[in-house]
Amino acid sequence: MLTNDLPRYEILDEAALGELERGWRRIVSELGIEFLYEEALDYFRKAGQDVDGQLVKFDPDWILEQVAKAPAEFTLQARNPERSVPIGGKNMVFSAVYGCPFVREGLERRDATYDDFQNLVRLSQSYPQLDSPGGTICEPNDLPLDSRHLDMVYALLTLSDKPFMGSVTSGPNAEDTIAMAELVFGKESLEANPAIISLINVNSPLRYDDRMLAALVEYAKRGQATIVTPFLLMGAMSPVSVPATLAQQVGEALAGIALVQTIRPGCPVVFGSFLSNTDMQSGSPSFGTPESAVGLLCTGQIARHYNLPFRGGGALTSSQVVDAQAGYESMMSLWPTFLAGTNFVMHSAGWLESALVSCYEKFVTDVELLRMMYHVFQPLEINEETLAFSAHQEVGQGGHFLGAVHTLERFRECFYRPLVSSTENYERWNRNGGRDTATRANEVWKKTLEDEDTQQRLADNPFRSAVMALDRLHPDDP
Amino acid sequence: MLTNDLPRYEILDEAALGELERGWRRIVSELGIEFLYEEALDYFRKAGQDVDGQLVKFDPDWILEQVAKAPAEFTLQARNPERSVPIGGKNMVFSAVYGCPFVREGLERRDATYDDFQNLVRLSQSYPQLDSPGGTICEPNDLPLDSRHLDMVYALLTLSDKPFMGSVTSGPNAEDTIAMAELVFGKESLEANPAIISLINVNSPLRYDDRMLAALVEYAKRGQATIVTPFLLMGAMSPVSVPATLAQQVGEALAGIALVQTIRPGCPVVFGSFLSNTDMQSGSPSFGTPESAVGLLCTGQIARHYNLPFRGGGALTSSQVVDAQAGYESMMSLWPTFLAGTNFVMHSAGWLESALVSCYEKFVTDVELLRMMYHVFQPLEINEETLAFSAHQEVGQGGHFLGAVHTLERFRECFYRPLVSSTENYERWNRNGGRDTATRANEVWKKTLEDEDTQQRLADNPFRSAVMALDRLHPDDP
Repeated sequence: MLTNDLPRYEILDEAALGELERGWRRIVSELGIEFLYEEALDYFRKAGQDVDGQLVKFDPDWILEQVAKAPAEFTLQARNPERSVPIGGKNMVFSAVYGCPFVREGLERRDATYDDFQNLVRLSQSYPQLDSPGGTICEPNDLPLDSRHLDMVYALLTLSDKPFMGSVTSGPNAEDTIAMAELVFGKESLEANPAIISLINVNSPLRYDDRMLAALVEYAKRGQATIVTPFLLMGAMSPVSVPATLAQQVGEALAGIALVQTIRPGCPVVFGSFLSNTDMQSGSPSFGTPESAVGLLCTGQIARHYNLPFRGGGALTSSQVVDAQAGYESMMSLWPTFLAGTNFVMHSAGWLESALVSCYEKFVTDVELLRMMYHVFQPLEINEETLAFSAHQEVGQGGHFLGAVHTLERFRECFYRPLVSSTENYERWNRNGGRDTATRANEVWKKTLEDEDTQQRLADNPFRSAVMALDRLHPDDP
Repeated sequence: MLTNDLPRYEILDEAALGELERGWRRIVSELGIEFLYEEALDYFRKAGQDVDGQLVKFDPDWILEQVAKAPAEFTLQARNPERSVPIGGKNMVFSAVYGCPFVREGLERRDATYDDFQNLVRLSQSYPQLDSPGGTICEPNDLPLDSRHLDMVYALLTLSDKPFMGSVTSGPNAEDTIAMAELVFGKESLEANPAIISLINVNSPLRYDDRMLAALVEYAKRGQATIVTPFLLMGAMSPVSVPATLAQQVGEALAGIALVQTIRPGCPVVFGSFLSNTDMQSGSPSFGTPESAVGLLCTGQIARHYNLPFRGGGALTSSQVVDAQAGYESMMSLWPTFLAGTNFVMHSAGWLESALVSCYEKFVTDVELLRMMYHVFQPLEINEETLAFSAHQEVGQGGHFLGAVHTLERFRECFYRPLVSSTENYERWNRNGGRDTATRANEVWKKTLEDEDTQQRLADNPFRSAVMALDRLHPDDP
């Protein structure tokens, strides 16, 4: 977790924010949003909104009244209390890639399995830059569909002691997630403070589907956090215009957040953004684009305007492999993530190929990026000590600082130390095999997995009895 | 060139700026700076500074008085007047990589030649994101040392009509550069507006060497612009502390700028920054680091404080090849370059392996990064038209925008269109050869060089007679 004490980078003025406000109000009131779930429609009807079939036309002021009930900041419990995290304010919380059907490991690209799922959760547990493994870190295609969500939550709760994301594939699956969390956290504790955060995607444009709504309703009733996220690839799910898409994003997200607050006032909820664009030549989704960077900077400003924690960004790319494009697109997406002070960052590590692939090497490379960005976003302390006049006195003109006392006292910790990056000179690099970043990252994650003795950690864990209870639910599991 | 109308990202408060002010004042007054060139010492002596041998101890207020004479903004002439650029203010000007002894082309790394030099100048001419080929775009090792600077300036003036950087390897070489520029621009025009900008590095810590000073003096006498740049790899040329290094940078740069203003008040001059750190494990220089990003953000703020145009940033990396590290380190360096509103950006394209290598594929990849960053740093217009309510009306709930009238009218120009990046789906990408970024970049630069019919352009150029005069100087040149 990072407390981002650097300034927010804001590019919208009051007039622009006013135009966006006008934009979303018109969308929700004149066009309305469809909710394909009867229980949600009931809530809106009772609250006096204009419900016609599945279409709801909103009073924007009513939406804002509901939104105002949401907390600006809340704590998300972890199984290990030391790893609980505050969501909102200056805090930035990072979770791993989410939702990919495939896995890449070195040169091999294949269907993701439960083994991969477990490995990637273990990797998330290993790196302190990740606050959460997230949820569907990859799709365990080798498990039966009807019980897959149980296996995922089980792995998230036993191989990691960080906060996790719940199942959203249906209402009952959300209930199962809550039941399992109760075993670990206890019913009262879960009621008092959310221990599950779940991704509710809007089926944009202007439609919430039944599965997501059913899950949203279950989590909201139980006071668990949701991230209400319009799914916006401009050109496909929204107009080919960043402002139009931002207005749509606000309207869609605030309507869902209002629903949460109608179900349970004060329930923790996050303003979600997943905003990029379609490549209009190929029709493919495109990530790590300039448009998405701009959209993210604006989203931060908008979410703060409504006093809501927000989600966005990550280490996104369309690249098929861990190459230069994967590196620069991930940075094109991470810089605005940090500049905007994004409170909850999904897809922080492992994302490849427009979210089709969870990649081991990309995972480690992204951890490097996060480590670097954490380092940048620390306030710079300028004072007598850091001005280090004595070092200048010691070295004087034309010398070098390599052997200075000031240097020798600090050389181990003074600079960022890379995980994957190489500064080897060419001859040495060549002698050592001429390995590129992806090759080095492959070695790093294998070593990290070896080192991650999760069982040992679990043995020392205060939640052991709860974990054992979970183990009893899964007698066949190793 | 970019007029950067987005806000500057500033991370220092008044107290921090005050501490830095205190820091550099102490360095220049108590420790002093060595100037290994008699003529420079004469200027300081006459101006009443404390000169003892080659060491000058300064009155910081005198330095600031001189610095105040430098223009906050000036125009740098190009051979093609349409390509002249303003240096300072909100303007960002980009030049190519500078000073590399080696070249990388695909898998081959070798000594750079004059052929490479010419190719890279042609590439710089081709891409509108580059305002200048710079100067020593690579070291033409196959040419004799004593006349090499003439060949370089000749290529810069004939294969490109953009502004160029002059030779700084000695006083006479600077004179030769000026003489050649006179042939092209005419003596009067050159006197009225600089047409040469040259990189004067400080031999940090706290020392200016004779070659650089001789060149600085020549250029200043003739009113040509210089970029006075402390060469600071923390841990080697400065303390292992960003604040200490910033204080040193200010002291060193302002002392050189004061010299320029003493020689010729009002002479255009740029506050230069080349600030990164040593990898304290290997002793190698390290580029695209978090520390250099922070240093660059601070440098922008400092230069604005003294009302000076400033140079910094670029697409820097320590990577040996065009891999993920090359991509993410270049972005780690380009984002702060833009956020700081850097006025003159050297090393914008082609830099590899800590500036040992000018790389063709990196060149094209960096042009992609510049194109993306240009796109991000455009003000977002939010108004009735861009809110595009009609598009929402047209598509409604649950549809898609791919076939909407609003989309069809705009799809060609609505989003950034990549040069090298790929959004191809995996199957198609694989079928097309599974080429990574570096492989695609190789194809792009070869195609660009083929398309760049420089001779044709020169034939239409108003400076043709001047170019012919240069041709007469080089009768053997093709």
